[in-house]
Amino acid sequence: MSSDPTFTTQLPVPEAIIEAVLAAVVFDDRGLVPAVAQQHDTGEVLMLAWMDRAAVAETLRTGRSCYWSRSRKALWRKGETSAQTQRVVEFCLDCDSDTILLKVAQTGVVCHTGRRVCFFRSLRPDGFVETHPVAVDPKTLYGG
Amino acid sequence: MSSDPTFTTQLPVPEAIIEAVLAAVVFDDRGLVPAVAQQHDTGEVLMLAWMDRAAVAETLRTGRSCYWSRSRKALWRKGETSAQTQRVVEFCLDCDSDTILLKVAQTGVVCHTGRRVCFFRSLRPDGFVETHPVAVDPKTLYGG
Repeated sequence: MSSDPTFTTQLPVPEAIIEAVLAAVVFDDRGLVPAVAQQHDTGEVLMLAWMDRAAVAETLRTGRSCYWSRSRKALWRKGETSAQTQRVVEFCLDCDSDTILLKVAQTGVVCHTGRRVCFFRSLRPDGFVETHPVAVDPKTLYGG
Repeated sequence: MSSDPTFTTQLPVPEAIIEAVLAAVVFDDRGLVPAVAQQHDTGEVLMLAWMDRAAVAETLRTGRSCYWSRSRKALWRKGETSAQTQRVVEFCLDCDSDTILLKVAQTGVVCHTGRRVCFFRSLRPDGFVETHPVAVDPKTLYGG
Protein backbone atom coordinates (compact mmCIF):
# COMPACT_ATOMS: atom_id res chain seq x y z
CA MET A 1 0.00 0.00 0.00
CA SER A 2 2.92 2.32 0.60
CA SER A 3 3.61 2.19 -3.12
CA ASP A 4 0.31 3.92 -3.97
CA PRO A 5 1.49 6.24 -6.74
CA THR A 6 -1.22 8.90 -6.47
CA PHE A 7 0.35 10.87 -3.66
CA THR A 8 3.53 11.19 -1.65
CA THR A 9 3.50 11.10 2.12
CA GLN A 10 5.83 12.81 4.56
CA LEU A 11 5.44 9.97 7.09
CA PRO A 12 6.74 7.94 8.80
CA VAL A 13 9.50 9.97 10.46
CA PRO A 14 12.52 8.77 12.49
CA GLU A 15 12.28 8.15 16.24
CA ALA A 16 14.34 11.25 17.07
CA ILE A 17 11.85 13.40 15.17
CA ILE A 18 8.94 11.71 16.98
CA GLU A 19 10.56 12.67 20.28
CA ALA A 20 10.97 16.26 19.10
CA VAL A 21 7.31 16.44 18.03
CA LEU A 22 6.14 15.03 21.37
CA ALA A 23 8.22 17.70 23.12
CA ALA A 24 6.69 20.43 20.94
CA VAL A 25 3.01 19.49 21.18
CA VAL A 26 1.06 21.08 24.05
CA PHE A 27 -1.23 18.43 25.52
CA ASP A 28 -4.16 19.56 27.67
CA ASP A 29 -4.74 18.71 31.32
CA ARG A 30 -6.16 15.33 30.25
CA GLY A 31 -3.01 14.66 28.22
CA LEU A 32 -4.88 15.10 24.94
CA VAL A 33 -4.61 17.27 21.84
CA PRO A 34 -7.32 17.74 19.18
CA ALA A 35 -6.50 16.51 15.68
CA VAL A 36 -8.43 17.63 12.61
CA ALA A 37 -8.36 15.23 9.65
CA GLN A 38 -8.65 16.79 6.19
CA GLN A 39 -8.75 14.89 2.91
CA HIS A 40 -5.44 15.86 1.32
CA ASP A 41 -6.60 16.27 -2.27
CA THR A 42 -10.16 17.59 -2.00
CA GLY A 43 -9.73 19.70 1.14
CA GLU A 44 -12.83 18.20 2.81
CA VAL A 45 -12.68 18.40 6.60
CA LEU A 46 -13.48 14.81 7.55
CA MET A 47 -13.48 14.63 11.35
CA LEU A 48 -11.99 15.82 14.61
CA ALA A 49 -10.65 13.37 17.15
CA TRP A 50 -8.18 13.37 20.03
CA MET A 51 -4.66 12.09 20.46
CA ASP A 52 -2.59 11.29 23.51
CA ARG A 53 1.21 11.00 23.37
CA ALA A 54 1.06 7.35 22.35
CA ALA A 55 -1.40 8.08 19.55
CA VAL A 56 0.81 10.87 18.17
CA ALA A 57 3.85 8.60 18.33
CA GLU A 58 2.07 5.69 16.65
CA THR A 59 0.71 7.92 13.89
CA LEU A 60 4.17 9.30 13.17
CA ARG A 61 5.72 5.82 13.33
CA THR A 62 3.20 4.07 11.07
CA GLY A 63 1.90 6.82 8.81
CA ARG A 64 -1.67 5.80 9.67
CA SER A 65 -3.99 7.81 11.91
CA CYS A 66 -4.14 6.56 15.48
CA TYR A 67 -6.36 8.46 17.92
CA TRP A 68 -7.30 8.18 21.58
CA SER A 69 -10.89 7.11 22.07
CA ARG A 70 -12.31 9.08 25.00
CA SER A 71 -15.31 6.75 25.23
CA ARG A 72 -13.36 3.48 25.08
CA LYS A 73 -10.31 4.92 26.85
CA ALA A 74 -8.01 3.12 24.46
CA LEU A 75 -5.94 3.77 21.37
CA TRP A 76 -8.19 3.93 18.33
CA ARG A 77 -6.45 2.80 15.16
CA LYS A 78 -8.74 4.38 12.61
CA GLY A 79 -10.12 1.65 10.39
CA GLU A 80 -9.09 -1.21 12.69
CA THR A 81 -12.63 -2.63 12.72
CA SER A 82 -14.20 -0.77 9.78
CA ALA A 83 -11.25 -1.04 7.34
CA GLN A 84 -11.81 2.68 6.61
CA THR A 85 -8.18 3.59 7.26
CA GLN A 86 -6.42 6.94 6.98
CA ARG A 87 -2.96 7.23 5.45
CA VAL A 88 -1.37 10.42 6.75
CA VAL A 89 0.09 12.49 3.95
CA GLU A 90 1.09 15.51 6.05
CA PHE A 91 1.22 16.30 9.78
CA CYS A 92 0.81 20.00 10.65
CA LEU A 93 0.92 21.85 13.95
CA ASP A 94 -0.69 25.19 14.74
CA CYS A 95 0.87 28.37 16.10
CA ASP A 96 0.11 27.51 19.73
CA SER A 97 1.20 23.88 19.29
CA ASP A 98 -2.11 22.75 20.77
CA THR A 99 -3.92 21.52 17.64
CA ILE A 100 -2.81 19.04 14.98
CA LEU A 101 -3.97 19.06 11.38
CA LEU A 102 -3.62 15.76 9.53
CA LYS A 103 -3.87 15.80 5.77
CA VAL A 104 -4.95 12.26 5.00
CA ALA A 105 -5.89 9.87 2.24
CA GLN A 106 -9.12 8.39 3.58
CA THR A 107 -10.17 4.95 2.42
CA GLY A 108 -13.94 4.85 2.02
CA VAL A 109 -16.09 6.74 4.51
CA VAL A 110 -14.86 8.41 7.69
CA CYS A 111 -18.07 8.56 9.70
CA HIS A 112 -19.53 5.76 11.82
CA THR A 113 -22.90 6.65 10.26
CA GLY A 114 -21.56 5.54 6.88
CA ARG A 115 -21.17 9.04 5.49
CA ARG A 116 -18.10 10.32 3.71
CA VAL A 117 -17.51 13.02 6.38
CA CYS A 118 -18.58 13.53 10.00
CA PHE A 119 -19.66 17.15 9.34
CA PHE A 120 -22.76 16.22 7.35
CA ARG A 121 -25.18 18.61 9.05
CA SER A 122 -25.18 22.16 7.74
CA LEU A 123 -27.30 24.94 9.20
CA ARG A 124 -29.84 26.82 7.11
CA PRO A 125 -32.10 29.65 8.32
CA ASP A 126 -34.79 27.03 9.07
CA GLY A 127 -32.58 24.38 10.65
CA PHE A 128 -30.01 21.70 9.80
CA VAL A 129 -29.95 19.91 6.47
CA GLU A 130 -27.92 16.80 5.68
CA THR A 131 -25.31 17.52 3.03
CA HIS A 132 -23.87 14.01 2.69
CA PRO A 133 -25.90 10.84 2.15
CA VAL A 134 -25.24 7.53 3.85
CA ALA A 135 -22.82 5.97 1.38
CA VAL A 136 -22.20 2.69 3.18
CA ASP A 137 -24.54 0.80 5.49
CA PRO A 138 -22.95 1.09 8.96
CA LYS A 139 -23.78 -2.57 9.60
CA THR A 140 -21.38 -3.56 6.85
CA LEU A 141 -18.67 -1.37 8.43
CA TYR A 142 -18.85 -2.91 11.88
CA GLY A 143 -20.25 -6.36 11.13
CA GLY A 144 -23.39 -5.51 13.14
CA MET B 1 -20.46 44.21 3.72
CA SER B 2 -23.40 41.81 3.74
CA SER B 3 -23.92 42.68 0.09
CA ASP B 4 -20.56 41.17 -0.90
CA PRO B 5 -21.55 39.42 -4.13
CA THR B 6 -18.83 36.77 -4.21
CA PHE B 7 -20.57 34.31 -1.91
CA THR B 8 -23.84 33.63 -0.18
CA THR B 9 -24.02 32.99 3.53
CA GLN B 10 -26.48 30.85 5.48
CA LEU B 11 -26.23 33.15 8.53
CA PRO B 12 -27.64 34.81 10.53
CA VAL B 13 -30.46 32.50 11.59
CA PRO B 14 -33.59 33.32 13.65
CA GLU B 15 -33.58 33.16 17.46
CA ALA B 16 -35.66 29.97 17.55
CA ILE B 17 -33.06 28.21 15.40
CA ILE B 18 -30.27 29.51 17.66
CA GLU B 19 -32.05 27.92 20.64
CA ALA B 20 -32.38 24.64 18.72
CA VAL B 21 -28.67 24.66 17.85
CA LEU B 22 -27.69 25.38 21.46
CA ALA B 23 -29.84 22.43 22.53
CA ALA B 24 -28.20 20.17 19.94
CA VAL B 25 -24.53 21.02 20.57
CA VAL B 26 -22.74 18.90 23.18
CA PHE B 27 -20.54 21.20 25.26
CA ASP B 28 -17.73 19.63 27.29
CA ASP B 29 -17.35 19.75 31.08
CA ARG B 30 -15.90 23.26 30.76
CA GLY B 31 -18.93 24.34 28.74
CA LEU B 32 -16.89 24.55 25.54
CA VAL B 33 -16.97 23.02 22.07
CA PRO B 34 -14.12 23.08 19.53
CA ALA B 35 -14.75 24.97 16.30
CA VAL B 36 -12.65 24.48 13.18
CA ALA B 37 -12.57 27.41 10.75
CA GLN B 38 -12.08 26.55 7.08
CA GLN B 39 -11.81 29.06 4.24
CA HIS B 40 -15.01 28.43 2.31
CA ASP B 41 -13.66 28.74 -1.23
CA THR B 42 -10.11 27.39 -1.02
CA GLY B 43 -10.71 24.70 1.62
CA GLU B 44 -7.72 25.82 3.70
CA VAL B 45 -8.06 24.89 7.38
CA LEU B 46 -7.34 28.20 9.06
CA MET B 47 -7.54 27.64 12.82
CA LEU B 48 -9.21 25.83 15.69
CA ALA B 49 -10.71 27.74 18.59
CA TRP B 50 -13.33 27.18 21.27
CA MET B 51 -16.88 28.39 21.75
CA ASP B 52 -19.12 28.56 24.78
CA ARG B 53 -22.91 28.89 24.48
CA ALA B 54 -22.73 32.68 24.22
CA ALA B 55 -20.12 32.51 21.46
CA VAL B 56 -22.21 30.05 19.44
CA ALA B 57 -25.27 32.26 19.87
CA GLU B 58 -23.43 35.43 18.91
CA THR B 59 -21.89 33.78 15.84
CA LEU B 60 -25.31 32.59 14.67
CA ARG B 61 -26.87 35.98 15.42
CA THR B 62 -24.25 38.13 13.71
CA GLY B 63 -22.80 35.88 11.02
CA ARG B 64 -19.30 36.70 12.26
CA SER B 65 -17.10 34.27 14.19
CA CYS B 66 -17.14 34.77 17.93
CA TYR B 67 -15.06 32.42 20.06
CA TRP B 68 -14.31 31.96 23.75
CA SER B 69 -10.76 32.91 24.66
CA ARG B 70 -9.50 30.39 27.21
CA SER B 71 -6.53 32.62 28.05
CA ARG B 72 -8.49 35.86 28.43
CA LYS B 73 -11.63 34.12 29.73
CA ALA B 74 -13.81 36.36 27.60
CA LEU B 75 -15.70 36.35 24.34
CA TRP B 76 -13.28 36.77 21.46
CA ARG B 77 -14.86 38.50 18.50
CA LYS B 78 -12.41 37.45 15.81
CA GLY B 79 -10.93 40.57 14.25
CA GLU B 80 -12.08 42.92 17.01
CA THR B 81 -8.59 44.28 17.51
CA SER B 82 -6.84 43.04 14.35
CA ALA B 83 -9.65 43.80 11.85
CA GLN B 84 -9.02 40.30 10.43
CA THR B 85 -12.68 39.30 10.70
CA GLN B 86 -14.41 36.08 9.65
CA ARG B 87 -17.77 36.11 7.92
CA VAL B 88 -19.40 32.74 8.48
CA VAL B 89 -20.70 31.26 5.25
CA GLU B 90 -21.79 27.91 6.66
CA PHE B 91 -22.14 26.38 10.15
CA CYS B 92 -21.77 22.59 10.28
CA LEU B 93 -22.04 20.11 13.14
CA ASP B 94 -20.46 16.68 13.33
CA CYS B 95 -22.07 13.30 13.95
CA ASP B 96 -21.51 13.43 17.73
CA SER B 97 -22.60 17.08 17.95
CA ASP B 98 -19.38 17.88 19.80
CA THR B 99 -17.41 19.68 17.08
CA ILE B 100 -18.38 22.65 14.91
CA LEU B 101 -17.03 23.34 11.44
CA LEU B 102 -17.29 26.94 10.27
CA LYS B 103 -16.84 27.63 6.60
CA VAL B 104 -15.72 31.24 6.59
CA ALA B 105 -14.65 34.14 4.43
CA GLN B 106 -11.52 35.30 6.20
CA THR B 107 -10.42 38.90 5.80
CA GLY B 108 -6.63 39.06 5.66
CA VAL B 109 -4.61 36.70 7.82
CA VAL B 110 -6.01 34.45 10.52
CA CYS B 111 -2.91 33.89 12.65
CA HIS B 112 -1.59 36.20 15.35
CA THR B 113 1.86 35.62 13.85
CA GLY B 114 0.71 37.39 10.68
CA ARG B 115 0.43 34.22 8.61
CA ARG B 116 -2.53 33.34 6.45
CA VAL B 117 -3.27 30.17 8.49
CA CYS B 118 -2.40 28.95 11.98
CA PHE B 119 -1.26 25.53 10.69
CA PHE B 120 1.93 26.81 9.09
CA ARG B 121 4.28 24.12 10.41
CA SER B 122 4.36 20.90 8.44
CA LEU B 123 6.42 17.88 9.44
CA ARG B 124 9.07 16.43 7.16
CA PRO B 125 11.30 13.41 7.90
CA ASP B 126 13.92 15.81 9.29
CA GLY B 127 11.60 18.12 11.25
CA PHE B 128 9.08 20.91 10.82
CA VAL B 129 9.19 23.33 7.90
CA GLU B 130 7.17 26.54 7.62
CA THR B 131 4.73 26.37 4.74
CA HIS B 132 3.29 29.89 5.02
CA PRO B 133 5.34 33.09 5.22
CA VAL B 134 4.56 36.01 7.51
CA ALA B 135 2.27 38.04 5.27
CA VAL B 136 1.52 40.90 7.66
CA ASP B 137 3.74 42.29 10.43
CA PRO B 138 1.95 41.31 13.68
CA LYS B 139 2.74 44.78 15.07
CA THR B 140 0.49 46.30 12.44
CA LEU B 141 -2.30 43.87 13.41
CA TYR B 142 -2.32 44.70 17.09
CA GLY B 143 -0.91 48.19 17.13
CA GLY B 144 2.14 46.98 19.13
